Order: sequence, then C-alpha cells, then structure tokens
Amino acid sequence: MASPPTSSAAPSDEATLRERLRRIIFEADTPAGKAFDVVLLVLIVASVLLVMWETVPGVREENRQLIVALEWVVTALFTLEYLARLWTAPSARGYARSFFGVIDLLSVLPVYLALVVPGAQSLLVVRSLRLMRVFRVFKMAHFLRQANFLLDAVRSSARKIAVFLLSVVLINVIVGSTMYVIEGAANGFDSMFRGVYWSIVTMSTVGFGDIAPQTGLGQVLAAALMIMGYSVIAVPTGIVSAEVASARAHDAPQPTCPACGWDDHDVRAVHCQRCGAVLHTAPAADRSPAADD
Amino acid sequence: MASPPTSSAAPSDEATLRERLRRIIFEADTPAGKAFDVVLLVLIVASVLLVMWETVPGVREENRQLIVALEWVVTALFTLEYLARLWTAPSARGYARSFFGVIDLLSVLPVYLALVVPGAQSLLVVRSLRLMRVFRVFKMAHFLRQANFLLDAVRSSARKIAVFLLSVVLINVIVGSTMYVIEGAANGFDSMFRGVYWSIVTMSTVGFGDIAPQTGLGQVLAAALMIMGYSVIAVPTGIVSAEVASARAHDAPQPTCPACGWDDHDVRAVHCQRCGAVLHTAPAADRSPAADD
Amino acid sequence: MASPPTSSAAPSDEATLRERLRRIIFEADTPAGKAFDVVLLVLIVASVLLVMWETVPGVREENRQLIVALEWVVTALFTLEYLARLWTAPSARGYARSFFGVIDLLSVLPVYLALVVPGAQSLLVVRSLRLMRVFRVFKMAHFLRQANFLLDAVRSSARKIAVFLLSVVLINVIVGSTMYVIEGAANGFDSMFRGVYWSIVTMSTVGFGDIAPQTGLGQVLAAALMIMGYSVIAVPTGIVSAEVASARAHDAPQPTCPACGWDDHDVRAVHCQRCGAVLHTAPAADRSPAADD
Amino acid sequence: MASPPTSSAAPSDEATLRERLRRIIFEADTPAGKAFDVVLLVLIVASVLLVMWETVPGVREENRQLIVALEWVVTALFTLEYLARLWTAPSARGYARSFFGVIDLLSVLPVYLALVVPGAQSLLVVRSLRLMRVFRVFKMAHFLRQANFLLDAVRSSARKIAVFLLSVVLINVIVGSTMYVIEGAANGFDSMFRGVYWSIVTMSTVGFGDIAPQTGLGQVLAAALMIMGYSVIAVPTGIVSAEVASARAHDAPQPTCPACGWDDHDVRAVHCQRCGAVLHTAPAADRSPAADD
Repeated sequence: MASPPTSSAAPSDEATLRERLRRIIFEADTPAGKAFDVVLLVLIVASVLLVMWETVPGVREENRQLIVALEWVVTALFTLEYLARLWTAPSARGYARSFFGVIDLLSVLPVYLALVVPGAQSLLVVRSLRLMRVFRVFKMAHFLRQANFLLDAVRSSARKIAVFLLSVVLINVIVGSTMYVIEGAANGFDSMFRGVYWSIVTMSTVGFGDIAPQTGLGQVLAAALMIMGYSVIAVPTGIVSAEVASARAHDAPQPTCPACGWDDHDVRAVHCQRCGAVLHTAPAADRSPAADD
Repeated sequence: MASPPTSSAAPSDEATLRERLRRIIFEADTPAGKAFDVVLLVLIVASVLLVMWETVPGVREENRQLIVALEWVVTALFTLEYLARLWTAPSARGYARSFFGVIDLLSVLPVYLALVVPGAQSLLVVRSLRLMRVFRVFKMAHFLRQANFLLDAVRSSARKIAVFLLSVVLINVIVGSTMYVIEGAANGFDSMFRGVYWSIVTMSTVGFGDIAPQTGLGQVLAAALMIMGYSVIAVPTGIVSAEVASARAHDAPQPTCPACGWDDHDVRAVHCQRCGAVLHTAPAADRSPAADD
Repeated sequence: MASPPTSSAAPSDEATLRERLRRIIFEADTPAGKAFDVVLLVLIVASVLLVMWETVPGVREENRQLIVALEWVVTALFTLEYLARLWTAPSARGYARSFFGVIDLLSVLPVYLALVVPGAQSLLVVRSLRLMRVFRVFKMAHFLRQANFLLDAVRSSARKIAVFLLSVVLINVIVGSTMYVIEGAANGFDSMFRGVYWSIVTMSTVGFGDIAPQTGLGQVLAAALMIMGYSVIAVPTGIVSAEVASARAHDAPQPTCPACGWDDHDVRAVHCQRCGAVLHTAPAADRSPAADD
Repeated sequence: MASPPTSSAAPSDEATLRERLRRIIFEADTPAGKAFDVVLLVLIVASVLLVMWETVPGVREENRQLIVALEWVVTALFTLEYLARLWTAPSARGYARSFFGVIDLLSVLPVYLALVVPGAQSLLVVRSLRLMRVFRVFKMAHFLRQANFLLDAVRSSARKIAVFLLSVVLINVIVGSTMYVIEGAANGFDSMFRGVYWSIVTMSTVGFGDIAPQTGLGQVLAAALMIMGYSVIAVPTGIVSAEVASARAHDAPQPTCPACGWDDHDVRAVHCQRCGAVLHTAPAADRSPAADD
C-alpha cells in the first residue's frame, strides 16, 4: 500500500543503478531482464556462427575487413557484459570463479591474445560453450523443469550406466586388441589403439568404414561384435526407460491428506488411502500427468 | 419417417450435383467416396513413381514421348480434381489456403510453368507431398486412430524431446568445432560447419565415412562421442516408452459409473471407485487392452 | 494297466511302419523322433554351409569332385526325407502344399534342374529357408513359447508399427526426392530412386557412405534427417516395450477364484479380489514371473 | 570382550603370514587389502597400455630397451602375484583352475614363452582379460550390486534374447545368400559368406560401406533390410526394458510383517496384505526406490 521506508532508505545513485543492472543481467523476471537474455542469446548464436563462417575456405580471404570488424564488435560487447557482470554480481570473485564466469572470460580472451600471439584466434572455439546459456534463457519458459527431469532420470541410473559403460570399454579393449593380432597393420589395424578405436566405431554401430576387417576370421569376429552391440544397446535404454517411467509416475501432483499428512495418493483419490479422511471435494478428472504445456 | 420437406426444398440440379460430388471427393462414407479415395491414391503413387522414373539416367532420352504423354494425363486429372475441389468445397478460399489445397495446386503448377520457364519441371518433387493423402484414405480403415496414438505419445513428450534435441545440437556444435581445430582442413575437416556435420553424422551413429578423424587425439574424441551417442539414444526412447505405456494404460475401455458418471476405473473394477455403486454385472475378464483389431 | 485291445487291432505291417515313421518324422516326443530332428538340423546346417562354401572364390575349382559328391549325398538324403514325409503325412496333398512342404521340395529341385538347365544351381539359395526348421526342433526345448511371446508382442502392436513404417517411407520419399534435386547426378544422386535409397540408408543410421551429400544445403538436410532418425527410433521401441511389459505382466500364472471364477489376481493374492473367497492356502512367495528356466 | 583363546591357538609364524597375505590379496575389507587392489588395478591398466603402446608403428624401434625393461618389471610383479595367490589360496588347485587363475597365468606365460618361441609376444593380448578384475576391485564400492542387477535383467530374459538372436542370424543368412545371387562377385559380394557378413553389417545399422549393393534390385532389398533392422532393434530393447522395470520394482526395500513374516508388501503399505497386522508406525513417504547413492 505505502512505499517501504525501512528497507534501503536513500541509497546512493550508484547502488540503485547497480542493483537495477543486476536484476536485468542476472535475473529474468522483468521485461528488461527477459529482453537482455534474448538479445544476449541472439548475440551468442551470431558470434558462434561468425567464428564458424570464418573457417569456411575462401571466406576469410574475401571478407577479411568485415570479419575483423564484426569480431571486434562482438568482443567489445562481450567484454562490456563481462565487466558489468563482475561489477553487479553479489560477489565478483564468486562470479569470476563460477563455471559461466570462466567461460565468459575465455570467450573474449583469445581475441586480445591474438594481438600478441598469432594463431590464438583458434581458441575462440571455446566461445561455443557460451551456447549453454541457452538453458538459462529458457528458464523463463519453464523449460528447465524438463531438463531437470531428464537429468534426474539419468543421474539416478548413473551408477548402472557407469557399470554398463565400463563393460563396454572392457569389451572394446579385448576385442580391439584381438582384432589387431588377427588383421595386422597390412589391413589398416596399424596399432592396438587403432584396433580399439575400430572396435568402438563398430560396436556403437557408427561404422565409418575407414578401417574394415579383410580376413575371414576378422569378419566373423566383427559380425559377432555387431550383433552384440546391436543387442547390448537395449541395456541403457531399458535402464533409462524404467527410470523415466518411475519419475513420470511421481511427477503428477499428488493430494496430501489433511488429517495424517500422507502424500502418495492417486491423482484422482477422494479418500486418503491410509486414514480415510476426505482429501478434496472435486476430483481432478481432467488433470492428466502429461498436461504440462 | 417422412421425407424432410423443410430443408433445401427443390434445390437446383446444379446444387444437387455439387453436393453429391462434394460427398464423393471430400468424404469417404459412401462406396463412391471410398472408390474415389482409392483411385486417387493409386494415381498419386503412380504420378510420384513417374516423376522418379523420369530421373533414371537414359530413361528420359528413350521414352521421351511416353513420359510427356503420361505427365500430361496425370496433370490433366489432377487439375480437374483441383477445380472440382475448389467448386465443391464449402469454402473455395478455405480449401485453396489449406495445407492440402496448397500442395494440390503446387503439384500441377510446375508442368504448366515448364511451358514458359525451362527447368521448372524439377519442382515436381513437391508432388511427393501429395502422398500424405494416404493417411486421409486410411481413415476409412480406422488407421488414423493409431496415428493419433503415436502423435499423442510424441506430442505429450514434445517438450522433453525438445530439451533433448537442443542438448544434442549443443554438444555437436562444441564437439564439431573442437574437431575442426584438432584435425584441420588437411584431414577433411575444411570448416567448422563440416566439423559439426561430421559430429552429427557420428553421434547419430550413421557414420558415412566420407570424413573420418586421422589424428590420435581426434580418434579419442570420436570414440568418446560415439560411446556417448550410443548411450544417449536411451533418453528419447525412455521418454517415448513411458509415454506409450501410459497412453496404452488409458487406451482400454473403462467402465462408466451409472450413478455418478465417474469414468476412470480399472477395467476390472466392480464397484465405482468414487461413489461405490455397482458398475456392471459380468466382469470383463477376457477384454484385453491389446485387442484392437 | 492292461494293453489297449480296442484301438487299431491287428494292423498290417505297412500301416504300423508308416505310423511309426510318422511319429519319428513329424513328432518329437520319442527318443527316435528327437534324434531325427537333431540329425536333420545338423544336416540342414551342413547343407547350407556347403552351398555357401562352394561360392568362395577358388574353392569350386580345387574341390570340384568333393563338392559334387557331397551335394548329391545331401540331395539324396533330402529327397528321401521328402518322399518319406509325403508317404507318412496324414494328408500328402496337405503336406505338399504347406509352407515347409514347398520349401522342402524347392531345396532339392535345383540340383535335378541343373542337370537340364545350366546355372539352376544358384537357386539352391532357397535351401537356407530350411534353416527355419530350427524353430520346430527347438519346440522340444519349449523354446517356441518364447518365440510366440515375441510374435505376440510384435503382432499386437503391428498396426501402430505399420503406421510408423508408412510415415518413415513417406518421409524418405519426400527427403530423397528433394535431395536428388539439391545434389544432382554430379554428386552421386543419379536418380530419385537413388535419393530415396540414400535417405533410407541415412535415416536408419546405417550410413554406407557410398553416396554422401557434397553441397552445404544437402549436408544441412542430411543432418536434420539424421537427428530425426536418431530420435524417431524411439517410437517403435516405445511401442514394443509397452507391449512386452504388458504381455509379461499377464505371463505369470494367476490363481483363479474357486467361487466366482475371477482369474485376474496378483500371483501372491490370498483372497479373491472380487468376492473374497480364499484362493489357495500357501502363498506362492517364491514364484517369480521371470523363473522360466 | 576377551581375546578368543580357542581358535587357532599359537599358530606358526608362517601360517600367520600366509593368512595375513591371503586377506590382503583375496579380500578387500582391510586398508591393506583395498590398497593392494587399487595398486594391482593401476598395474594392470599400465601393463595393458604398455602392450598397446608397443604396437604403435615406430615406437618399438625407438624405445626397444625401455619397453623390454618395463615388460620384464611388469612380468616379474605379475609372476610374484601369481605365486603369492597360489600359496595363500585356500586351495592352490582350485585357484589355478579358476577363471581368473588361468587368466593370471596366461598373462605372464607369453613373455617367458617368447624366450624360446619368437612371436609368442603377440599372445600378450590375453593380458587385457585381466582388466576384468576391475569389477572385483569395484566390489569395495558396492558397484557389483549394480552389475548383478544388469546381469539379472539380461539373464532372466536370456531365452527371449536367444530366440531373437537366432531369428536375426536366420534372416541374415537368407538375405545375405540372396544378395550374393543378386549382386554377384563383380559388385564385391565375392562369396555367400561375404553376403551374410554384409547383411549383418547392414541390419545392425553399422554400415561400413566396404561393400554396398550396386544393382537396383539389390538396393531395394538393402532398403527393406535396413528398415527392418531399424524396427527390429525395438524387440530386445522392449524385453530388457520390461525386465529392468520389473527388477527395479522389486529393488525397493519392502516392509516385513512382524506377525507372519510376509515380506512382499508395497513400500507404502500400513497393514500386512496377508494377515492384516500393522507393519510400521511411520509411513516411508520420503523413501524413493531410486535413492541408491
């Protein structure tokens, strides 16, 4: 109703500006904050495309001046953004040491470095890591909830998947080494490392064809490996499927009993399944667990 | 009981013809309507095969006159069909602007256009889009219900899949750019775009082999990418599996309570799970959820 | 207790022999019947390996006489078996027209035909179809139950899978035709059919690499197709997973209520879940649905 | 409370040393035992990398002396370990004949053998099998429970998977033989074995591209095989998914009835589902089946 006179009475202009900037840069709950995030995302995508475009043969020679100009514009904007974040962050040290803080710095540093060390430009590849901010921007749209859902499903089966991957690596080392002995350098398996690489390429069903077994025995072993790889892919899928199904079942909002606090009821339950107290009057017939738009 | 004298009394012959034609063309509940749909489908498949056959090396030279004749027959029939649809549709404008209306027009236009602009013939590829009418024809056979089932399962997990695809694209941009820096143009990675293309080819386990890493470091990164791609495929599968299982569980006909109208019971329920009224006398023991033939 | 005097009293020697032979050839419930099946299976595998071995370059030239001799031995044995089956089958016509009857005939015919028509030998490839008898032999070991289980799971989702495959074919026709227009004959896409073939090779993540897009636009379209193929594989997997899970749940033996006949109880249920009658005295605690060895 | 005077009173020094060594080598419940396992694992990984590194072209020539020295150090350590295991094992014969006993011997034998028989060195590939000890070492970290979980899921569906693999092999023999007849030696299918090999490479979606069909008919058959392989992968995945989901459901700790000992209740059950006794006072609302860290 009235203006809050107690909190932050008469702050300096600088503090107000800093606070307002912080809300724009670090948060997305104001129109300006959302606009900043969207503009930043567009700029990041553009900067990544610029770095990639530059590597196309012939482009650098023909558009040297344009590329240099654009690169400096992007770098200047990113440098400004970095400094603004350093200034407005609750803890400058905390930001500078955070994952995104390091990436933000690394995505401008190579341009300055290239003034001294030629070729440092190629380190700009690190800028593509900034694309991960896309997930932060999508936070606005509650997209992150789905990402968390996926991460949870993967994380809770992480140990099973680790055992699975370990077995896969083991099988590949054993098969790849054997393959080197069978085929030998004459057929492209010029070291055991290459044999293991071939084995991974084959078992994951990628199959480049840059190396392929030529001897009969090698092809029999390859066939066995392929059929195994083809069947074994079922294991991680089965794990994650079960995990997602389970997470999905717990995803729906479940009514809590007002009497005993028991909260694991069916979405459509009318009476508490533990003590029998009435849960809510209108059953949520239309509430479907999949309705998350 | 009696003929309806109120509605459309004494229509002109033209209106009757138009109405009858409309039922044949746009609906499939009469024998003539079904026959029209089947003939149309056969014609579409034939026209697509004709366009494809024409592109086989040597065919055009040897069968020039036959191909031109067949092409004009098909085009004439499709043009007639388009005009008939325009005339009989409840709203000519609505049809002309609808998805299928645009495709129907685009599938005849290139032939006329080729009279003026040489080479417009190659736009006939758009005609293959007409094949999508196959789903409309299968409506007769209640096939569409299954298509809807699949679409529902995909749609309700669309957001999770979007997050998944976004992550996949991100990983590919990062890995592909790094790969360009590691391998360089000498090994076929002649731009970052090509690196990203290679990364997608590899992670999706397609593995053309037109580009393959040659350096040791590149092969290690490739191996890691493959094992990741191999495991990560579990995520969308898990999502859709859970979705299909859930949709399937709700697919079975559920008894409706005669007392309160509650219709979300177990197939085998005897009493209404909301008000306790008896649902039906004979339990549906033999009714299986999979019996949908 | 006593010998059955009523059935088949004093049969002729021939009828007895025929009946005994029938039991050995067509059934597997006697030691002789089992031995016959195993010997037949070994012979079929050997005959298929013989046909395959013969095609290895150089083998035919060096081992001409051995191969011809072995081929005639196998053919003679299979001919004898075919005649014996014709003679002992309850209906010779029925057997001759059955699936296996036709295959049994076709697997010996080419050898006789090759006496008249040179090159008919290559039709022997049909002999590999006889390998399907392996499933009949495994009947002894109750393996067939599992095959039925898989067939049921696939069959009950056949319609959904049909819609899925139809969509996949449609997408491939559209993408493949477009790819032909984009890439053209110069890059290996020498007809629209080849474009569709490439599209199927790519979307199914096989990726031979005999044809690969060379233009930038073609590679973008290819990348989109791959990511789609990679995600879309989730759909049939989801369908079959749900089907198998459901079939598995119904696989366990469920106690039937002696009072009301209700037979859809939990394996461990003690009281009928419909009328409350006692089902059986000792709960089957150790009976697990997976214990099928 | 007091020292146990009855068991193994006054053992000889040798027996004590042997027993202590046995606990270190064969068990992992003491700090020394854990340290031994970790050191052994590092040594095994190093020895495998040494064998692989040796095969890189050029490495052997330049580092001959270093490699020979390292190889003898590793072999000496492994020989010592083998002898120690023989001495401390409860039954020397039992260990020598066990799976790991044979592998432990085979991983040192080639080095000694190479003194007499040149080239026996290449048998060292068997040493990579020692990597399987990694699972024994991870026992410490309760990782084995997850491996058992996966093994159980695979084992209980082993028969279904066997039928599936048998069908896959059958299909590949039939398709591969047909492909040889269609394409012939001119297009790279130089024997039926190669046709079957190609068929396995294709159906498992590996697709090396070392052999690819060139005729139209061959490409149509290949396309059908690919779409089939793409769909059929759903079957093992569905089986394992259902198995994992089921195993997971039984994974959660289930309350045991204090009255009748019945232990297969729902995690949230309040009353025993068999005799009705109260199970526990506080409902395990927060206990999630996925909490296994």
